[in-house]
Amino acid sequence: LSDAIAAQVLDANSRFYAAFEALDIDAVEDCWEKSSRAACVHPGSRWVTGWTAVQASLEGMLSNIDYIEFEVLDLNVSVEDPVAMVTCVERVSSTAGSGRATLDVCATNIFVLSSEGWKLVLHHASPIMQPSDSEGEAE
Amino acid sequence: LSDAIAAQVLDANSRFYAAFEALDIDAVEDCWEKSSRAACVHPGSRWVTGWTAVQASLEGMLSNIDYIEFEVLDLNVSVEDPVAMVTCVERVSSTAGSGRATLDVCATNIFVLSSEGWKLVLHHASPIMQPSDSEGEAE
Repeated sequence: LSDAIAAQVLDANSRFYAAFEALDIDAVEDCWEKSSRAACVHPGSRWVTGWTAVQASLEGMLSNIDYIEFEVLDLNVSVEDPVAMVTCVERVSSTAGSGRATLDVCATNIFVLSSEGWKLVLHHASPIMQPSDSEGEAE
Repeated sequence: LSDAIAAQVLDANSRFYAAFEALDIDAVEDCWEKSSRAACVHPGSRWVTGWTAVQASLEGMLSNIDYIEFEVLDLNVSVEDPVAMVTCVERVSSTAGSGRATLDVCATNIFVLSSEGWKLVLHHASPIMQPSDSEGEAE
């Protein structure tokens, strides 16, 4: 995995979160491959599959959010040309409707290289429900 | 995506769940690529990264389970040679310690083709917390 390829993928990943923070639906959509295999899971939710449904879910999320900020932690990138697998933890701060929330979320972002660069085909986000001082070790 | 390739991937996916149902740790481990990029998230938990840690988490799970059964629903397969992306819903019934539970889980399983067949490099499982009669449509 060359540094240049890893940098491309990390840039694509960063642009996805920056677009969300900017509440810029066009920029969020530009991160995605508009295909039937596009798929996402928002934290605690069901699969949304196919670009039309994914697009609707992204628009629905953004229209309900007043403010959102991502601190992206524990980034790992792996590439199997033409696929890149990114895993990370999103520390999400947001205000939506009634109040402010902070949530740690595990995310898988799968990108495929196209002539327009690395495009998201799969975003899977899940809430972390165990205490942060537990390292997942149940002795 | 040829039917034969899709069948190979679905077979690898089925063997993963069958190995879990059999509580057969060797068979579960055989489904995985033993590499530093191996990664998994169990429902509600944090990232476990690298084969050594993934292996320990799988052994920990199996040692705590008396019985587990998966009904695998909503399967989607997409292949970008040499990577296969499988998404599904796991309807999990299990007994662990105190009681019996049934849980619907969204899963992403990413396989990479090796000389020994399709091997898991990433398993991301997340609890579905919305009611099953909601289709995720917040109007």
